[in-house]
This record gives sequence, structure tokens and C-alpha cells, in this order.
Amino acid sequence: MKIKSYERKAHYYETDQMGMIHHANYVHWLEEARIDYLEQVGMGYKSMEEAGVFSPVLSISCRYKHMVHFDDVIRVQMKLAEYNGIKYKISYRITDAASGQVRALAETEHCFLTREGKPMNLKKSHPAFDAVMESLLGVESGQDEAAAGTVGVR
Amino acid sequence: MKIKSYERKAHYYETDQMGMIHHANYVHWLEEARIDYLEQVGMGYKSMEEAGVFSPVLSISCRYKHMVHFDDVIRVQMKLAEYNGIKYKISYRITDAASGQVRALAETEHCFLTREGKPMNLKKSHPAFDAVMESLLGVESGQDEAAAGTVGVR
Amino acid sequence: MKIKSYERKAHYYETDQMGMIHHANYVHWLEEARIDYLEQVGMGYKSMEEAGVFSPVLSISCRYKHMVHFDDVIRVQMKLAEYNGIKYKISYRITDAASGQVRALAETEHCFLTREGKPMNLKKSHPAFDAVMESLLGVESGQDEAAAGTVGVR
Amino acid sequence: MKIKSYERKAHYYETDQMGMIHHANYVHWLEEARIDYLEQVGMGYKSMEEAGVFSPVLSISCRYKHMVHFDDVIRVQMKLAEYNGIKYKISYRITDAASGQVRALAETEHCFLTREGKPMNLKKSHPAFDAVMESLLGVESGQDEAAAGTVGVR
Repeated sequence: MKIKSYERKAHYYETDQMGMIHHANYVHWLEEARIDYLEQVGMGYKSMEEAGVFSPVLSISCRYKHMVHFDDVIRVQMKLAEYNGIKYKISYRITDAASGQVRALAETEHCFLTREGKPMNLKKSHPAFDAVMESLLGVESGQDEAAAGTVGVR
Repeated sequence: MKIKSYERKAHYYETDQMGMIHHANYVHWLEEARIDYLEQVGMGYKSMEEAGVFSPVLSISCRYKHMVHFDDVIRVQMKLAEYNGIKYKISYRITDAASGQVRALAETEHCFLTREGKPMNLKKSHPAFDAVMESLLGVESGQDEAAAGTVGVR
Repeated sequence: MKIKSYERKAHYYETDQMGMIHHANYVHWLEEARIDYLEQVGMGYKSMEEAGVFSPVLSISCRYKHMVHFDDVIRVQMKLAEYNGIKYKISYRITDAASGQVRALAETEHCFLTREGKPMNLKKSHPAFDAVMESLLGVESGQDEAAAGTVGVR
Repeated sequence: MKIKSYERKAHYYETDQMGMIHHANYVHWLEEARIDYLEQVGMGYKSMEEAGVFSPVLSISCRYKHMVHFDDVIRVQMKLAEYNGIKYKISYRITDAASGQVRALAETEHCFLTREGKPMNLKKSHPAFDAVMESLLGVESGQDEAAAGTVGVR
């Protein structure tokens, strides 16, 4: 399964007076990349919520390696690192799309909840979604892009 | 009826690389001031929503007069300028709490919706809320504070 | 001169508990569209700042017509409505890219400042930028796209 | 040294369509608490920057325990967990001010940079700031408040 990495420009309103992107905005980027990834594998988060599956964040961690500036194109590659029907863990690599240099490494953990906020085992409640998640285990987005070395050109 | 103005510090994450508060954040301040004002008059927005009254923004306008910087204490005075049961208009004055100088002037318009998103006439549906709104017409928050000239001292 | 409209999905983190996009985020969209427009005409905002031209927002107004929801693709068309070297005014039309329906109409006013925060007349200080601005007067982005009626297909 | 915990209401614009505070906003709260803490110990972040000391975030981690809702008062207690002149680590405890229940546990790491972005050893460059940091090692804000059990009453 080939999944594209997520790319977009860093916005002006995401900068702070240190002249770089404020660290809190990276958390938004992780969510954007996550939702884009799910969309690509036919499991759009909107349709998940409509099907009664909510997936809140249990934890987040992010290590900032180098500053990102306004107008830089950031690229987020992500991998479903763990999944057992009840919880899952995603790891992220944020790079500068032009240079390929790492900007940040991150990880998020999630669970599944019903509309009423009750924990849910996707294996039992939504076997079709579960099958997709199982198939994604270990799959990293943007793999061929990196291999092809086309990152800096786009 | 005496209503206090709303004050808080401008946050670091609200700055941008021009070294001042990014203009989009003022929209947040208006909402904070509005909710604080409603709370003071016993019409907390949380309880309004629980009673099935939603009040979205129909329009917003803001004129930026002078920059606000990180750590500045901003003070928002507001006034219910118009109200007819169906819509209302609020005007705002954002000043620097230390100097009293105007930072921005703003206006928002709102209506009332049911939980299902249908327009609502507060006069008919919620007479108690309507009575509070009627009593607020023309009332500006922070009036005595200004009169007392204590603004710069706090 | 043909300038493309600006499009992107509404993010999950831009929603609020009313189940729609919070109104403050539209201010971000206007900025994104503005910067994308300037980029297209060879006047990238990053290079403008590097050339010592800063362009803060003097005023903003936005009229919300219909709700935008998570995952909707919004499309922003904009037009340089007024320009005289010292100030300029932009008008915006935010539509739903799929249906073409209007979501919001907005307007922003801007001036030019030096790095030190002094007002600047672009005609005198940066004739090349001024020439671009002059050529843009009245030009609306996304014109042909609309005429071609391809909006809903993309 | 007694340092007060940081408290404020969760804002409406911080909610998302799951009906709770979006997780990215907690990162803002940590910054607000951090700046408030530094202010209380006479080391306001604004004056630090004016003295040429910048302190970016190296890493952040946050474990979400229970949802926070609009209008809840959150309370952030923090502790300077590690400090060696070059880097420091802060741990945070976000609780519901009314009930005292834990909402999230977090940690951030920081370093010091010059205005030009060069790493800085505070012990050598700014002995006065260093002395304050040393004196704060292990000091948790809001200690007596908790001990007094007055949390729910305020």
C-alpha cells in the first residue's frame, strides 16, 4: 500500500516573535497528516465519526530538531507503529520538503470511543475499519517519494 | 447594572514574526470578553447552550489602531448596541490597560439558533433570557473603572 | 493576468463544539489566500519582508453566510479592490468548492511599513512592487475556474 | 519560595466538534503557566528576551487523562525538574480547579539561545538569572493551595 506524505507551507499566522513557527502548531500538522493518511486509505475521519467511531488523542510527544520558518514547505511522513483494536500509536517525521532535513520527530497515541464516550474495540465493533488498520501496521507514508529523491524538486 | 471590563495578558503564542500580536487573535479576545460579560449578568454561555440556545456570529469587524505586544494587558469594554429578540449587535473597545490607549475597535453581530440550527426569537422561546438582554441594551462594561481613572494603576 | 483561487480543507482543529468551523479561523484563511495570491504574482510575502516591506492589517470585516464543516473544501477568491501606494483594500469571497455556495464575504485593509514600523509609500520606495500592485487592481482570482464551472469537479 | 499555580477558564474557541477542548490547546496552557511562573519569580520572559535570552522548546510531551470542557477552570501546577545552565526540564500537572481531578500530565524541555540563535550557558552569560533558576530547582507551584484543600472553593 502506497501512501503519500503530507505537505504544506508554514503559515504566517503560525510564526511567533522569535521569527519561527511556534511549537504548538506542530500539533496541528500532526493532525492534518493523520487525517490525510486516513483519507488516503479510505477511512476518512469524517466518515469514521459518522459511523460512530471517535478517536481522541491519549498522548502526544514531539522533539523539535530545527526551526521551521514562514513559507517553508514542511513534509510529514507517518507510520502506524502499534495497533491492537483498542489503541494505536503513530510515529511522525517532519522534514523540510526542500532540503529533506529533519525538523521534528513526534508520536501520538489514540483510542476509540463511541459517540457516548465509551471505549470501543474496533475488532469487534467495526471489523472493516479494523481490517484497514491491520493492513496499515508498519506502513510509512511517503516511502517511495524519499527513495526517488524527488523531495527537493517538487 | 455594573459590569466589569475583561482583562488579560497577551500571550507569547499570540505573537507573530512582526513582533506583535497577530490580528486574528483579537477575534478570540472579543469572544472571551463576550462570554465573561454574559457570565457576569447571570447568562453564562454554557448554561445558555444547555438550555438549547446557541448564538453564532453573523458578522465581525475590527479596526486595528495600534499594535499590541506580548505581555501587554489588554482590556476589552463592550456594549450591547442593538437587540430585538432575533439578532443583536455588540461594540467593543480594546485598550491597553496600563496606558488606557485604544488598540482596536470592533463590532460583532449574532443571532439565536436552536440545537437543530433553526432561527429562534428569544422573546418567545426564552423570556427570562430576553429580559436580561433587554436590560443590557446600551450598557457598557467597565464604565466606572474608566471614570475612576484607575486604569493605568492596576 | 490569471490568478488561481485558494483552496484547502477545513481542519478538525478548526471546529468548535457547535460542530462547525469556529469563526475566528476564517481570518486565517484570508491570510493564506492573500499570501498565495501575492506568491502567484511574483510578490511573495517572504521576499517582501526581506526587502523591508511589512504589510500589517488595518481592518478586517467578515460576514458569515453559511456554516463550514470539518473536511469541507473551502475556496477563497479575492480581488485587489483599492490601492494607492500607501494603503490597499482586498475583498474576498469564500465558497464551498464542491457546491459553489457562498460561505462568507470579507474585506481587509492594509498599509505598508518599514522594518522600523514607519509608514511607507510603495510608489516611492519600491516602484517594482508598486507596478505589480497597480497591475492587479480589480483582478479577481479564480475567474476562469468559475466561468468553466469546474468547481464542483475538482 | 511560594509560587502560585496558574488558573484560567477553557475558552469556547478552544473546543472542537467532539465537544471538548482540542488537545493542541494544552500546549498553549503550558506556555501560559510557564510564563506566569517566571513572572512570579522576577524573571519575566519579556525582560529575559530584552536581556538577550531566548528560550525555545526542545521537546514536549503530554498525556491526556480526562477531557476538559468549555468553561471549566483548569489549574496548572509546574515544577522545575532539571536545570544545568544549558537546558532545563519542567513537569506540569493540569487539574480541574473545581474538583482537583487530574486532566493531563506534561513535560517540556528548553535551552537558552542568544538573539542570534546561538546556544548559551546561563551560568556564564547571565549569573543573576542562573541564580534564580538554581533556587527554583524542584520547587512546585501551587503547593500550599493544594495542601490547604481550598482548590474547589475558589
